[in-house]
Amino acid sequence: MNKQKKRVSDSSIEGHVYKVFPSDLNAHYSVFGGLVMATCDRLALVVAERHSGHPCVTASVDSMHFRAPAKDGDTLIFKAAANRVFKTSMEIGIKVMAENSYTGDERHIVSAYFTFVALDDDKRPVEVADVEPATPDERRRYRNADIRRSARLDTREQLKSSRGSTPKP
Amino acid sequence: MNKQKKRVSDSSIEGHVYKVFPSDLNAHYSVFGGLVMATCDRLALVVAERHSGHPCVTASVDSMHFRAPAKDGDTLIFKAAANRVFKTSMEIGIKVMAENSYTGDERHIVSAYFTFVALDDDKRPVEVADVEPATPDERRRYRNADIRRSARLDTREQLKSSRGSTPKP
Amino acid sequence: MNKQKKRVSDSSIEGHVYKVFPSDLNAHYSVFGGLVMATCDRLALVVAERHSGHPCVTASVDSMHFRAPAKDGDTLIFKAAANRVFKTSMEIGIKVMAENSYTGDERHIVSAYFTFVALDDDKRPVEVADVEPATPDERRRYRNADIRRSARLDTREQLKSSRGSTPKP
Amino acid sequence: MNKQKKRVSDSSIEGHVYKVFPSDLNAHYSVFGGLVMATCDRLALVVAERHSGHPCVTASVDSMHFRAPAKDGDTLIFKAAANRVFKTSMEIGIKVMAENSYTGDERHIVSAYFTFVALDDDKRPVEVADVEPATPDERRRYRNADIRRSARLDTREQLKSSRGSTPKP
Amino acid sequence: MNKQKKRVSDSSIEGHVYKVFPSDLNAHYSVFGGLVMATCDRLALVVAERHSGHPCVTASVDSMHFRAPAKDGDTLIFKAAANRVFKTSMEIGIKVMAENSYTGDERHIVSAYFTFVALDDDKRPVEVADVEPATPDERRRYRNADIRRSARLDTREQLKSSRGSTPKP
Amino acid sequence: MNKQKKRVSDSSIEGHVYKVFPSDLNAHYSVFGGLVMATCDRLALVVAERHSGHPCVTASVDSMHFRAPAKDGDTLIFKAAANRVFKTSMEIGIKVMAENSYTGDERHIVSAYFTFVALDDDKRPVEVADVEPATPDERRRYRNADIRRSARLDTREQLKSSRGSTPKP
Repeated sequence: MNKQKKRVSDSSIEGHVYKVFPSDLNAHYSVFGGLVMATCDRLALVVAERHSGHPCVTASVDSMHFRAPAKDGDTLIFKAAANRVFKTSMEIGIKVMAENSYTGDERHIVSAYFTFVALDDDKRPVEVADVEPATPDERRRYRNADIRRSARLDTREQLKSSRGSTPKP
Repeated sequence: MNKQKKRVSDSSIEGHVYKVFPSDLNAHYSVFGGLVMATCDRLALVVAERHSGHPCVTASVDSMHFRAPAKDGDTLIFKAAANRVFKTSMEIGIKVMAENSYTGDERHIVSAYFTFVALDDDKRPVEVADVEPATPDERRRYRNADIRRSARLDTREQLKSSRGSTPKP
Repeated sequence: MNKQKKRVSDSSIEGHVYKVFPSDLNAHYSVFGGLVMATCDRLALVVAERHSGHPCVTASVDSMHFRAPAKDGDTLIFKAAANRVFKTSMEIGIKVMAENSYTGDERHIVSAYFTFVALDDDKRPVEVADVEPATPDERRRYRNADIRRSARLDTREQLKSSRGSTPKP
Repeated sequence: MNKQKKRVSDSSIEGHVYKVFPSDLNAHYSVFGGLVMATCDRLALVVAERHSGHPCVTASVDSMHFRAPAKDGDTLIFKAAANRVFKTSMEIGIKVMAENSYTGDERHIVSAYFTFVALDDDKRPVEVADVEPATPDERRRYRNADIRRSARLDTREQLKSSRGSTPKP
Repeated sequence: MNKQKKRVSDSSIEGHVYKVFPSDLNAHYSVFGGLVMATCDRLALVVAERHSGHPCVTASVDSMHFRAPAKDGDTLIFKAAANRVFKTSMEIGIKVMAENSYTGDERHIVSAYFTFVALDDDKRPVEVADVEPATPDERRRYRNADIRRSARLDTREQLKSSRGSTPKP
Repeated sequence: MNKQKKRVSDSSIEGHVYKVFPSDLNAHYSVFGGLVMATCDRLALVVAERHSGHPCVTASVDSMHFRAPAKDGDTLIFKAAANRVFKTSMEIGIKVMAENSYTGDERHIVSAYFTFVALDDDKRPVEVADVEPATPDERRRYRNADIRRSARLDTREQLKSSRGSTPKP
């Protein structure tokens, strides 16, 4: 098994570009959030498969935040990178900017964190080499991935306890 | 402003149905996760707008878990309900089942929690009446929405501190 | 062969929900009728397959009436149920409402009647158990399905005779 | 108002062509009926608007028959023509063939009859000039449109009576 | 091998019709050029496969000119024909008109020339019978196909020489 | 008017990524060429608008070559850059690679050259600053853009003469 760490830049996506058309708008005439989610999922898959060298499947989406609406005529810019590996799963972080292509102005639209699991030929989870963070940003994202994961596991425990203690109606 | 609590069943979606076709599959020939996300977002929007009586926008997606793949020929069943209101925002919970329509067998495929914000005519957040949970399930989801929200706020704080303490490379 | 009658509610679809976006509009900026037809077909298929327990194919669409246009921002609500079985074919009735999700107002948009045929493993038509209508509405739809079918067969005969009597130009 | 009859060939569509791709298939891997319906609706609209010179809306679909499945790799050929005018409404007939483009073999897949209503600038129904059938085929379709229309009106009457006579449960 | 020339009219497409809807528009609210390209490619494929009797693949697009924008509500009319065969490849010419269906006015929107290659069962290029141009228009297009092809080969040679002579920076 | 030259890298797209799904395949189960064309058009638009700072429209596509088919499961990588400006028009070059994301292998799939025109507020062509090629590759593409343009103008002249000399049938 290849367990040698890999650089973030070997699998990251820097400048995926999507010019918004009227068919991308929701009932309030801003960009449909579901379209952004679907694009994030399709891009994060590529990062996960590049990093692991294996077919990957989406395990979860956590903390996807819509900070501002994107509008008709904006150009969306998607950036995606592997933040950290947890044995057989990987956190992929995605940032979406809305660019006014005429002026170059950019607004931060969405941040999202996806977890993918790598699969072997029998479709069982397979261990993946960790990322080797090389820049201050990559190191911060590496640490934060762990904070988010611990929080997820904590929350899951709390929710389990809650189930047990359901007060009788 | 109407602050009278509303029943969950007044805004919930019980049986949204989607027969999977080959065009819904991803590169591994299971149902594309991004399609499921986009459908969840579009449905949760309806629950949020029914409950609040206002135009709503997606604020975040938290803890969307893919438990099992859906396959070609499955029928997806989506259920969505307002779990709890936090002043101007609402947690909408969604559960996706994959049904074999010939046998009636069902598998639990996805759970997801979306937060929507209701907007007034000037597109500013507006207060929304809370839900009135009426069944044990609704009460459990009401409590759990608060656990998830507290966890999100905690995690956000931890991530903020982490930013400050970035070790020098 | 399972010929025991089944209840309508075992296969019906009560609340399929579709929020209209700008990409759903036709050249006159109301909802594209073809989209509604395609959704009806995809939903009716599920009802037919749930009721028969077999793969089903669309045989015909009869009396699909567009009563009023649906508009940008409406929420479409689709209801579908098996009305009656004719040996190997089933009439599936569909009703589409347009809901204003903010006010709860509903308008009746479309009624449609689809006929599906159930197929066995060799793709030959297979007999299907009849429905057991249980409510006044279900009984009315059961009777009306027969009126529509007789009318269809009559019309077909008339059209055949017409062919024979083509006057020479 | 222009009430001069128009020739069928002035508004008809002879060879609309659609090469089937995998994304057009349903769960049984034949061409999705809903796609064929939507294409028929979009084409019939053009015939109705060419014939009437007015914006038109779909009023109903009657007797759409699926005679045989179309398959992956087939080329669909759509033909559409105005059969007859009934004051403000028009029957548009559509025939869909599946062609094997390598051999030239054709199979008849679908026949359908759509009714469109022409609208004036205030979106009220407006009178349309009748068609002038010029060939034996056009004359047969002209006569048959009337048979179908009479049958529809008869059936509607029968269904109304049925409603009145609902036996008490 | 069948090397008998075939008539242009045996494979041509005369009246493919596409009513423009809002979902077909680009960021400037005219018809998205990419949609027109994709439709041309899908139609030209049918002409190439009809003419050759073999599966065909797109080899190149040359001189596709957008002469005028098409607008919301226009009806696009596509015409496609085999212009000439060059052993295993065929030039397919396509002309797109924008029709105002109410008045019958037409504008010439796009001209395009696609080259397709016919493949045998082993997916190797296979010789195709030449077209037999029968009208003045077909003969002009036959001659012009050769002019375009010679120009393409010339340009390719010039570009190759240019590569060799890259001045050192 | 801003006529200061701009660097190629200020408007180029380096790593637009598209994971191929079954819904992207044509009748021969390789990636639909029309999809690639449409994506190229949508990306080239962004480059043209970034470079010019103006709304742009597609004027022509020249020499788009499909060198090898892309397959189900491939990841397409699109690169696009402004090659040269000709007063009010720009040549945008696009290169498409097919990546096997598991192994990192890449194949060159498509090269294409689009011409866009920049428009002012009255939708009239407006002058655009030239590109400042900075690398050997950028200089080669700058020279080649001129070779292609001259060839296009020459071919157009030849085709015009051909029209005049149409032999009488």
